[in-house]
Amino acid sequence: MNKFLFLALVSACSQTIAAQNVVKYQANLNNVKYLYATVAPVAHLKPGDILDTNTLDCFGDAIRKPGDRLSMAPGDNPLTGPFFIEGAEPGDTLAVKILDLEVNGDQGVGALGPGFGALNPTNYTPMLNPPLPERIWFYPIDHASNTATFKALDSRFEVKIPVHPFLGCIGVAPAGGEARSSIVPAEFGGNLDSPEASAGNTVYFPVNVKGALLYLGDGHAAMGDGEVAGAAIEVPLHARVQVNVIKGRRINWPRFESEQAIMTVGAYRPVDDALRIAFTELVGWIHEDYGLSELDAYELLGKVAKIRLSEMVDPNYVVVASIEKKYLPERKRP
Amino acid sequence: MNKFLFLALVSACSQTIAAQNVVKYQANLNNVKYLYATVAPVAHLKPGDILDTNTLDCFGDAIRKPGDRLSMAPGDNPLTGPFFIEGAEPGDTLAVKILDLEVNGDQGVGALGPGFGALNPTNYTPMLNPPLPERIWFYPIDHASNTATFKALDSRFEVKIPVHPFLGCIGVAPAGGEARSSIVPAEFGGNLDSPEASAGNTVYFPVNVKGALLYLGDGHAAMGDGEVAGAAIEVPLHARVQVNVIKGRRINWPRFESEQAIMTVGAYRPVDDALRIAFTELVGWIHEDYGLSELDAYELLGKVAKIRLSEMVDPNYVVVASIEKKYLPERKRP
Amino acid sequence: MNKFLFLALVSACSQTIAAQNVVKYQANLNNVKYLYATVAPVAHLKPGDILDTNTLDCFGDAIRKPGDRLSMAPGDNPLTGPFFIEGAEPGDTLAVKILDLEVNGDQGVGALGPGFGALNPTNYTPMLNPPLPERIWFYPIDHASNTATFKALDSRFEVKIPVHPFLGCIGVAPAGGEARSSIVPAEFGGNLDSPEASAGNTVYFPVNVKGALLYLGDGHAAMGDGEVAGAAIEVPLHARVQVNVIKGRRINWPRFESEQAIMTVGAYRPVDDALRIAFTELVGWIHEDYGLSELDAYELLGKVAKIRLSEMVDPNYVVVASIEKKYLPERKRP
Amino acid sequence: MNKFLFLALVSACSQTIAAQNVVKYQANLNNVKYLYATVAPVAHLKPGDILDTNTLDCFGDAIRKPGDRLSMAPGDNPLTGPFFIEGAEPGDTLAVKILDLEVNGDQGVGALGPGFGALNPTNYTPMLNPPLPERIWFYPIDHASNTATFKALDSRFEVKIPVHPFLGCIGVAPAGGEARSSIVPAEFGGNLDSPEASAGNTVYFPVNVKGALLYLGDGHAAMGDGEVAGAAIEVPLHARVQVNVIKGRRINWPRFESEQAIMTVGAYRPVDDALRIAFTELVGWIHEDYGLSELDAYELLGKVAKIRLSEMVDPNYVVVASIEKKYLPERKRP
Repeated sequence: MNKFLFLALVSACSQTIAAQNVVKYQANLNNVKYLYATVAPVAHLKPGDILDTNTLDCFGDAIRKPGDRLSMAPGDNPLTGPFFIEGAEPGDTLAVKILDLEVNGDQGVGALGPGFGALNPTNYTPMLNPPLPERIWFYPIDHASNTATFKALDSRFEVKIPVHPFLGCIGVAPAGGEARSSIVPAEFGGNLDSPEASAGNTVYFPVNVKGALLYLGDGHAAMGDGEVAGAAIEVPLHARVQVNVIKGRRINWPRFESEQAIMTVGAYRPVDDALRIAFTELVGWIHEDYGLSELDAYELLGKVAKIRLSEMVDPNYVVVASIEKKYLPERKRP
Repeated sequence: MNKFLFLALVSACSQTIAAQNVVKYQANLNNVKYLYATVAPVAHLKPGDILDTNTLDCFGDAIRKPGDRLSMAPGDNPLTGPFFIEGAEPGDTLAVKILDLEVNGDQGVGALGPGFGALNPTNYTPMLNPPLPERIWFYPIDHASNTATFKALDSRFEVKIPVHPFLGCIGVAPAGGEARSSIVPAEFGGNLDSPEASAGNTVYFPVNVKGALLYLGDGHAAMGDGEVAGAAIEVPLHARVQVNVIKGRRINWPRFESEQAIMTVGAYRPVDDALRIAFTELVGWIHEDYGLSELDAYELLGKVAKIRLSEMVDPNYVVVASIEKKYLPERKRP
Repeated sequence: MNKFLFLALVSACSQTIAAQNVVKYQANLNNVKYLYATVAPVAHLKPGDILDTNTLDCFGDAIRKPGDRLSMAPGDNPLTGPFFIEGAEPGDTLAVKILDLEVNGDQGVGALGPGFGALNPTNYTPMLNPPLPERIWFYPIDHASNTATFKALDSRFEVKIPVHPFLGCIGVAPAGGEARSSIVPAEFGGNLDSPEASAGNTVYFPVNVKGALLYLGDGHAAMGDGEVAGAAIEVPLHARVQVNVIKGRRINWPRFESEQAIMTVGAYRPVDDALRIAFTELVGWIHEDYGLSELDAYELLGKVAKIRLSEMVDPNYVVVASIEKKYLPERKRP
Repeated sequence: MNKFLFLALVSACSQTIAAQNVVKYQANLNNVKYLYATVAPVAHLKPGDILDTNTLDCFGDAIRKPGDRLSMAPGDNPLTGPFFIEGAEPGDTLAVKILDLEVNGDQGVGALGPGFGALNPTNYTPMLNPPLPERIWFYPIDHASNTATFKALDSRFEVKIPVHPFLGCIGVAPAGGEARSSIVPAEFGGNLDSPEASAGNTVYFPVNVKGALLYLGDGHAAMGDGEVAGAAIEVPLHARVQVNVIKGRRINWPRFESEQAIMTVGAYRPVDDALRIAFTELVGWIHEDYGLSELDAYELLGKVAKIRLSEMVDPNYVVVASIEKKYLPERKRP
């Protein structure tokens, strides 16, 4: 690996960022997409560029006040993008460093509706029982204390929840010419609903098409593991991310990296298979980049791995497997 | 609920413990059991009593040095017990406060063997591929620094892992006259492999038979989420636990409680169903004891719940769902 | 069945059978069991003996007329037995040839109730939705035409269904000292709900304890694949079976054999894993007894195997994988 | 097939059909597709028209002789089409009557390769074990006896298998602008691998885009249930199908109909969920078209339903649930 690439990688993964070019883009209902697909980009970015943009909430910002209905949403998970990253070719890896995420407004929305949720029948786990009723909760957001407030609908109880903004949707154009709905998480990323997609972390994607075609959306102010009721605290976001390209490095599934840990993603059903995907990817990463044998890596993960079950409500379920870097040998390659 | 019961519960869940009776019992290869079943107890305890005992490691302490083989283990997960808790009747809940756990020795064992592991075929997920080889790792334990050391077998790498001792097996006699192998986690607890079974926490079990019949075993010095390679750092333990009985309170599945959180257990396959069990139990607990409606509880969990996927390697997989008490209304009943 | 066919069947699966001893045993509510377990036998059989007995229906024959409720059943799946087969030792295989099954009465029962069914929440796939109502259907049985009549509860429609009696429960004492509820199917057989347990077929079980301890129960007059609504046409049966012991032959899971086919059983969740168990067992059977390599057997099964998904409603799901003998080489060993 | 039966079949599933127009189309490696997607059609059909075309085998007819490798295939499941059906609009149902399928050649191919198969690790159920070796079996096809011959690779054994040709791939453009790989089965049909897609049967699809856009491919000369080894006897086919449009009738998932039975399709993972989809669709079909209440339909299916587990090897698994028409009330609407 040449020195230039090494430096690009270092800048992608760490805090110091020098005078980068900033590309601004404003998303609205007229330019959002509802598919991860290979379509004309809305803007071009160079490696190292910072994208300064916004995302609508998963309901297209349509649910505003008591009495509003889920049917008012123009579509699920409107996406900002796609953004063409120059120099990204199939077989490369796209690195997206999330610099900053801020809730764009004073309110978040939670909703219970048919077809979503881990404890009620859905389109892909249908049952004959009467459905749960549609319900909507509004979460006032206090920027000073960085909290959102849950207010019970059926009793007089409210409680503050710390805001931890992340992008529920972050992904690229799929491989093989596929186009997938914005509610799907898969090899190309997408509706991962992973709190790891938050400020300070880097997300890696396989580049499947020229320019990679990055999409962002579905901001969450906070979410429980598993997103069991089918929604997070859904919010529009203001987002700043920096893109880079790792040339000639091929990965199969999305990855996250923080200062402390490396993390792999698996997405399918049942959770068992999502976990197998995430962990075989993590064994492979440790083996290839840190030099442990596969069996030593497997054993070590059995002792110190962490599992985040991000969501069990989308068409595919998402598991993030991780290991803290302090448990690993020195990295052999960036 | 009367004042006596309230006080019993308070003592079960908190740190202050007055002059309790201490029952000592020494487990060894000749008196361990390999089933959760209704058999003659090895000792009797009164509510409030402290049990001071030990557990053998999951291999019956038989794997000692390089060259030892898994086939040398006299059985899997030898159990200490059962202990008869006076006054416990079917329909009650048994509360086991874990006071103290200490590794009983200077070494832990990790092993890769056929039939166990999330990333290799097992008895219940069999495949036709050639098996992985049997491998054993020894983990020296340093009591001063409270760490265990992983030493790679295929390269020169070692790293210290903090010791967090817990009981991989903790359970009671099953309902309906069933007897289950000590490798099974189920409604009666058992091989839960949950790090939540550690000092400071209380475990609750449904009482299925007179005396409840408590079993302990399978000490772990540390374990990664999912126990993916099939074993933790397996160790013998010295254990002190305090038992109490909550009369007339019926639960369906084991529960954990710490000072900070309430936690429910689900165990079956696939992970999806284990999660559904754990979360419907948690919704029920919040609804019954804290007064939120079921739908409000569901929504709130979607925003702040935590999921621990304890293991995906035993016959049944184990999920622990939890919520921090700070997010809940005041408890209506103990 | 004509005499020729009867002789062909007898010769198909067993050693030559001379004038057999017939052991009669009458089951009733006072002597049935609700566990597969190692308990005192109700009768002893020698290899070659014919057992002439009866089974109660899964509700203990308690549901008789409109207005009766599921709660009137004294327990689920009362079992006739256990029967001790002389000479059967752990490591042997028990062969149970089903000679004759007849519905013992003029009515069958179907029921929809909480906790059972593939399209409604159950104990191990719980959800928060309102439950389906309890419903009971009565099926008049016409012995002359050998049919049972379905009568719709909500409209004026009825239709005749051919009667094909089989034993929903057939199993032996589990290994390792386990005792399992009569609603569970597993390695020891049990609540397999497999229509293959019908007259003319032989069922093979691993012998786990001295005497094997055979249990029978849960007669079905007819059942759809998957038993999706949670019950078959539940009936008491009169049963005649013949037992034999294959010394020194160890199997892991139950097997069926008819004149035309060999069949293996897998039981667990999800169905995926039940299928993997059944098919790895079938590959092994073909490899060991018919001499094809494992990969040739795998390939051949991909072209001609049949799968019966027996049930997806008990705690474990049951798959029967089979291949017709006409597709196999000559058998190398009996 | 005699003329009487042909007429009965025609009348069974469609409006009366007069002297049909026949549209011929020749597929080859230069015009096949590898996606179910909304792209320019290769030909237009009117309702009632007969399409006379051919399909390449799943390897693009590239595997011809011993020594050939799976890597020689230009892609998986090349598709013939798409065909635009005039008058088909979103919200309608497309009916494809399969008139005739014939194997186009004298040889079929079976193959064992990485990433496919129910008893070996795959892309979505990955494991760390060493892989199975790549193996290819050639099946000579005898048109006179209508059989294909399995020849063991590791021993001297061969056996004839009856040929039952069907289209492994049959589907339409997905909804919502999605484009899916030709190896995927889903709501739009696709790689269903269902033997029900054979001569005499009708397949129904939801129309998602104007013209429906029908695709055909992946001919199978014979296949075992579950397609467990990952492939059928893969063959090119000559196919004749007749298309019709049912205006204003919306279905969610593909359906099959024969003279004897109605059948619904469910596709996802695990098999459990595929089954739930297929059966809730079948309950709905019976309720809507035959007038039974949902609970009566559920109960009746529990007694007489049939389940075909078509395949457990593609990205999504496929279950076909069916009921014979003789068990149903008179149909209320066509």
